[in-house]
Amino acid sequence: MHRHPEPAWREFYTTARIVEEIRAIGVDELAVGPDAYDPADRMAVPEDYRFASWDERARERGADPDLLDRMAGGNTGAVAVIDRGEGPAIGLRVDIDALFIEESDETGHDPADEGFRSEIDGAMHACGHDVHMTWGLAVLEAIKESDFSGRLVVFFQPAEETSGGGCPMAKSDFAADLDYLLAAHVGLDHPTGEVIAGIEKPLAMAHIDATIHGTSAHAGKAPNEGDNAMHAMGTAIVNAYGIPRHADGMTRVNIGYAEAGSASNVIAEEAHMETEARGETTELMEYMTDELERTVKSAATMHGCRADVEVVSKSPRADSDPELQALVSEVANGVRGIDRVVPAADFGASEDATFLMERVQRDGGLATYLIVGTDHPTSHHTPTFDVDEDSLEHGVDVLVETIRELEHQHPVPHVDGPASVDERADAEGGG
Amino acid sequence: MHRHPEPAWREFYTTARIVEEIRAIGVDELAVGPDAYDPADRMAVPEDYRFASWDERARERGADPDLLDRMAGGNTGAVAVIDRGEGPAIGLRVDIDALFIEESDETGHDPADEGFRSEIDGAMHACGHDVHMTWGLAVLEAIKESDFSGRLVVFFQPAEETSGGGCPMAKSDFAADLDYLLAAHVGLDHPTGEVIAGIEKPLAMAHIDATIHGTSAHAGKAPNEGDNAMHAMGTAIVNAYGIPRHADGMTRVNIGYAEAGSASNVIAEEAHMETEARGETTELMEYMTDELERTVKSAATMHGCRADVEVVSKSPRADSDPELQALVSEVANGVRGIDRVVPAADFGASEDATFLMERVQRDGGLATYLIVGTDHPTSHHTPTFDVDEDSLEHGVDVLVETIRELEHQHPVPHVDGPASVDERADAEGGG
Amino acid sequence: MHRHPEPAWREFYTTARIVEEIRAIGVDELAVGPDAYDPADRMAVPEDYRFASWDERARERGADPDLLDRMAGGNTGAVAVIDRGEGPAIGLRVDIDALFIEESDETGHDPADEGFRSEIDGAMHACGHDVHMTWGLAVLEAIKESDFSGRLVVFFQPAEETSGGGCPMAKSDFAADLDYLLAAHVGLDHPTGEVIAGIEKPLAMAHIDATIHGTSAHAGKAPNEGDNAMHAMGTAIVNAYGIPRHADGMTRVNIGYAEAGSASNVIAEEAHMETEARGETTELMEYMTDELERTVKSAATMHGCRADVEVVSKSPRADSDPELQALVSEVANGVRGIDRVVPAADFGASEDATFLMERVQRDGGLATYLIVGTDHPTSHHTPTFDVDEDSLEHGVDVLVETIRELEHQHPVPHVDGPASVDERADAEGGG
Amino acid sequence: MHRHPEPAWREFYTTARIVEEIRAIGVDELAVGPDAYDPADRMAVPEDYRFASWDERARERGADPDLLDRMAGGNTGAVAVIDRGEGPAIGLRVDIDALFIEESDETGHDPADEGFRSEIDGAMHACGHDVHMTWGLAVLEAIKESDFSGRLVVFFQPAEETSGGGCPMAKSDFAADLDYLLAAHVGLDHPTGEVIAGIEKPLAMAHIDATIHGTSAHAGKAPNEGDNAMHAMGTAIVNAYGIPRHADGMTRVNIGYAEAGSASNVIAEEAHMETEARGETTELMEYMTDELERTVKSAATMHGCRADVEVVSKSPRADSDPELQALVSEVANGVRGIDRVVPAADFGASEDATFLMERVQRDGGLATYLIVGTDHPTSHHTPTFDVDEDSLEHGVDVLVETIRELEHQHPVPHVDGPASVDERADAEGGG
Repeated sequence: MHRHPEPAWREFYTTARIVEEIRAIGVDELAVGPDAYDPADRMAVPEDYRFASWDERARERGADPDLLDRMAGGNTGAVAVIDRGEGPAIGLRVDIDALFIEESDETGHDPADEGFRSEIDGAMHACGHDVHMTWGLAVLEAIKESDFSGRLVVFFQPAEETSGGGCPMAKSDFAADLDYLLAAHVGLDHPTGEVIAGIEKPLAMAHIDATIHGTSAHAGKAPNEGDNAMHAMGTAIVNAYGIPRHADGMTRVNIGYAEAGSASNVIAEEAHMETEARGETTELMEYMTDELERTVKSAATMHGCRADVEVVSKSPRADSDPELQALVSEVANGVRGIDRVVPAADFGASEDATFLMERVQRDGGLATYLIVGTDHPTSHHTPTFDVDEDSLEHGVDVLVETIRELEHQHPVPHVDGPASVDERADAEGGG
Repeated sequence: MHRHPEPAWREFYTTARIVEEIRAIGVDELAVGPDAYDPADRMAVPEDYRFASWDERARERGADPDLLDRMAGGNTGAVAVIDRGEGPAIGLRVDIDALFIEESDETGHDPADEGFRSEIDGAMHACGHDVHMTWGLAVLEAIKESDFSGRLVVFFQPAEETSGGGCPMAKSDFAADLDYLLAAHVGLDHPTGEVIAGIEKPLAMAHIDATIHGTSAHAGKAPNEGDNAMHAMGTAIVNAYGIPRHADGMTRVNIGYAEAGSASNVIAEEAHMETEARGETTELMEYMTDELERTVKSAATMHGCRADVEVVSKSPRADSDPELQALVSEVANGVRGIDRVVPAADFGASEDATFLMERVQRDGGLATYLIVGTDHPTSHHTPTFDVDEDSLEHGVDVLVETIRELEHQHPVPHVDGPASVDERADAEGGG
Repeated sequence: MHRHPEPAWREFYTTARIVEEIRAIGVDELAVGPDAYDPADRMAVPEDYRFASWDERARERGADPDLLDRMAGGNTGAVAVIDRGEGPAIGLRVDIDALFIEESDETGHDPADEGFRSEIDGAMHACGHDVHMTWGLAVLEAIKESDFSGRLVVFFQPAEETSGGGCPMAKSDFAADLDYLLAAHVGLDHPTGEVIAGIEKPLAMAHIDATIHGTSAHAGKAPNEGDNAMHAMGTAIVNAYGIPRHADGMTRVNIGYAEAGSASNVIAEEAHMETEARGETTELMEYMTDELERTVKSAATMHGCRADVEVVSKSPRADSDPELQALVSEVANGVRGIDRVVPAADFGASEDATFLMERVQRDGGLATYLIVGTDHPTSHHTPTFDVDEDSLEHGVDVLVETIRELEHQHPVPHVDGPASVDERADAEGGG
Repeated sequence: MHRHPEPAWREFYTTARIVEEIRAIGVDELAVGPDAYDPADRMAVPEDYRFASWDERARERGADPDLLDRMAGGNTGAVAVIDRGEGPAIGLRVDIDALFIEESDETGHDPADEGFRSEIDGAMHACGHDVHMTWGLAVLEAIKESDFSGRLVVFFQPAEETSGGGCPMAKSDFAADLDYLLAAHVGLDHPTGEVIAGIEKPLAMAHIDATIHGTSAHAGKAPNEGDNAMHAMGTAIVNAYGIPRHADGMTRVNIGYAEAGSASNVIAEEAHMETEARGETTELMEYMTDELERTVKSAATMHGCRADVEVVSKSPRADSDPELQALVSEVANGVRGIDRVVPAADFGASEDATFLMERVQRDGGLATYLIVGTDHPTSHHTPTFDVDEDSLEHGVDVLVETIRELEHQHPVPHVDGPASVDERADAEGGG
């Protein structure tokens, strides 16, 4: 899988390969793309013209044309279900998208040395999602062959990197009435042999695009005739970083990409910014989003321009449930090769698995997001990111054992919905 | 010529065609590229890899390979000389480069309707330089066939749009000891039948590129670990526009293009800005340039970054000499089709013909920059710019008649060098 | 007069003394305060409570209580008229207010050494207006004693420093149908013996006060609960200086005084700025004023605040008429002690005498603003400003001689109104 | 005491009255001003000329002249010691300074209605420090009259509001080898009958003053000749609020007061800002302080100015020890009138009692900061702040009972120094 990285909502070949594998395993229910979720629930969907080359490449590589047709317009991803007898309904979420990073071809980078480097220029599995989908398939296979009793739903979610795929999966019928939800990630700075049974404080996040529309003019002859989108953008940038820190907890804001203008002698007609806002709670993320929008719009007004501000995608905060964390910890302690189990760790970043976690918790179920350590030579999202293959087996073992253990935990003792997360944060006074 | 627009320092086919025409006319001296000027004097030269596709296209269209070899590395342009007997040394400067603008293919745009639209996607003669080079060739031909006595030097200058070609031409031996210098432009918002005999207050201008180098970091996990090039850029933008107005006259500053960062969740590692600074005098342009540099560098320092600020090219201020203006006015009044002659007009913009004007004036000669009106349906630098063909003949007539008239003006009465321009501005107290 | 400096609209003692002198001279008409102009036309009038201490001090020093009662509420200043027989109607404008500057008591500062230093702490005639009113009185006396035939109106104008008194004087009936208007200033960096017969390009100017209203909050506990007037002010400042330069000519903007907030641990509730906008034409001043207002208001909105922006006072552009300049030049050349006469100089600054000049020009009369040089050791508006006493006589001589000469110039040849000023600027292209 | 509010380092009358009371009680050791601490350790000391009027007023009201002489130069405050037999060394810290707030004289404000409103215009005990010193005296008296065995040191600390007095008290010999340290505050939004036994997360804080030195110039004639301190200040303000949030926890920054320039037509020569930086740990406060300094200095450089940035005072973070909190809770539960005891609460603000807490903790002792609730009609630091008199008795009872209880706790079980505070924060990953 590492050789065929595809970015968000363009996981055509990836989905086709996954579906092929699932068919080989044999499951009770298999839904692809628009059958797995409502396409209208997708977030951060790229513009239409961006799909063609990826679709074409998938066809060239021999992906099933019927499947590709079904995924037309970027409806990638799949859900597989094993449904057998009495028992709990358990969800497992893995993500499948890659990043726009050119993989290293230097000696010393294992995928390059051993010939399984990305075959697609400018795209790379630099966050380990190829490991995740392998976990998903291996778990399906192991459970299929076992005497498991209950319902196992595996979500092969597209578009995690853009927070675009979590929402439609969470809103789908497949996410209804799950007793448990497991989401898993490899690495994240934890070494091989370590398992983190749950996360605390994942940040709620919004991706926000802003475009400022002005009027161009000749910068030498008549700068006053322009409405300077560049000047407005500069004002927006410096003020966005100054959005007040909040009494209720941690907040973040970033203008990560910006481009404005055309040539040095022209007053800029347009400016574009790709930004994000985060918060320790969903409310804090909303606060940052609102302030950012006001900042950009006022900066535009100040310079006679107009701004469009669009929330492209967002993900809520959702914490791991302690009861489920405890069970994962216990299971992981018994897995061969695991020598350190941490009940929970601060997450610090954002993840749209929180959509599924929140859905399950709201329905009365328990959820956790667990991390399976791997020795990775360099950071996630870098050209030389790589994983230790041992973590493949560790992940499968921890997940399968946990699922088997959950079989015996039914019924779920949990009752509170996700609203409690922010309530708790409020009660604590916040960071 | 309109069909083959080539941008600054990539006028390979254009130069080859011009040389072919000059050879057909027959001149006393013809210098191409590195023989016409010292390549080291060029400004705003693009990076090496940008030449290949233009060179290749020129070869495909049948340009002389020997000429192309001589122009390797972007040494385009040519100088042609007619040298006959006693008489004044007269320079004529025309420019030959095009712009990165996609020409309109709409009905109503004459070049589209009549089939001589740009054949090169994304490039266009949208400032009339194709007219200018036609003037240059026609003047050569007319003088060749006349009984002109003296020396005529025609500069086919590349890279005017980037202020890159004026300096090497002005420093070349061809520019030495000229008694008169004529530079000419078509249009500039003046209608067919109008001639402006000289310009006042062309702005001295500098093109300045700035790159801010920071350190990237995860915007959610550890924004403090970054050195934010985006934030530095925003600060530079808002402060650059606030560089103080100057007692000595008009100034201008613009950040015309800016790009920074990579993705919304990454603290920007790098930012790039393309800017310009102008002034009513060369000193004022230098003042703006210095202030801009300090602004960008301080903004970088403020955010823990480092900035490279490079003056890519610049052009001085040089005014038309009144004596020469008067002569051009007189001549133009007698040209058929010319019904309005204006002695001089404010220019408001910048032009690197000022390098040649300043050189000639410093050597004791007289210079003027004249404008030949043309009905152009839309502004210069737009996709539907077009000229009235009558202006082709008007330009040739005015230039040829002026050259013939100058033949009888020798010797030159003028003595002051170009330093006087700024001295005059100082004396007047400024705008 | 130098000992009793009083600031704008608080020239109680000054006016009383002037009136006393005028009564001693004996004139045909004398109007004080509300009889000289409509109080409603005054600009930049201080708040009511600011008058008491100055009124009191004037009473203590023996000013006529009836006069002080008539000036209640800050209606200072006076107009004196000599009206005799046939002849032109000539206006002379002098200003009478002082500045809030503490006069130097250092050795070497003549007023200190010679015992006529300001007797009022924190106020000083640091711009020579004490000289101006002396001129006004001396001219009245000289004309009174002469055989002058015509009408002479001397405006003792208050509040020049705040551009507050020019407007009401210009709107009064005393300013109606004047054939000529002379305004005069001492010094302005011109040495003793020099006279400047007129000014070019005085800048139109507006004084603008801005207050930003926010909400305070504890900066440590809950910065998000505030609406930060400090942050809004900072944004307004950096953006105000960046208001685009204008194609039509010179512009200026300044935030000259700013204060915001209360204590370091409080999010600022309020911010106050005292600013000015200038332009080469009245339109350009209006452009700057409008842009400044939008900038401040948008900055306030950006930070959840509200801004009040008030144009406290403004003065138009008005140039000296060349015909009157020529006459003043001729006269000045014949005055003893004057060794250099300059027909006109760029002014660069602003003056509300332009209200009167514009009024007279609109009514078909001629106006000039002349400068009588004086060796002043340090700049205007500094604690050690002082004048050369010779300039007292020079000023009186130039003014009296000019008035006598004008007697014989009647009728006025001039026809254009002041609108032509900006039209001319437009026609010239500007800047 | 409420009638005689005196601001930081000017508590002349206050200290004299306290000393008089202590003398009446009779203690074993009494140190005033420079005998209580090293004056050189004081922080945020006002300029010399600011003491005179307060010293004078204290003399007028009958304060002991000898005491006032000893406090010359702003060496206020006192330390009283009861030293009897075996037993623990217990410190009690109360603060004594008032605020620059004009107390309300409206009906409904009890001190106004009942005639004990502030007698000093513009100063007020609006944070309850008058209650604190009353507690200090009452505790001394109660312990004096009891059979207490051990050492009780009561710190009557000046200058808490400016974080100026905590450091010298903490460095004094009186603070050496204390087994326990109690600091107490009234109110803080907790109602009468409530006691908070300890605080968590007080913010480390720095007060930072910044002055920007530029060059003035005439804003109309030659703005380019100035080095604009106003523009630099604006840039500093907008960038200071944008100092990056930190991975390790909560940070704060505020520009609380700013003033720049003189008059609207002058480019500002100087700007002054009063700011603060806070952090969840001492390291985070240092980070914010360093970034703020760099921001201001770079902003100055950008505009050709120079900045002086001075850390006027700072206080570290120090948390309450759980063991001591537990004991205070237990004691408070038994005090009449106390109906709710909270073990600990987030503090969110800053306090320089942390200097003493940190000193005691570093020496191996235990410290807590406790809050005694009071129904206060409006917020602290407002003109109508007032306390419920019941809280006077509650505070004394809790403190005396706690001291008596501690008598039996000896020896101290605690061993860790204050470094552990930040270590703990690190381990937790931060807010």
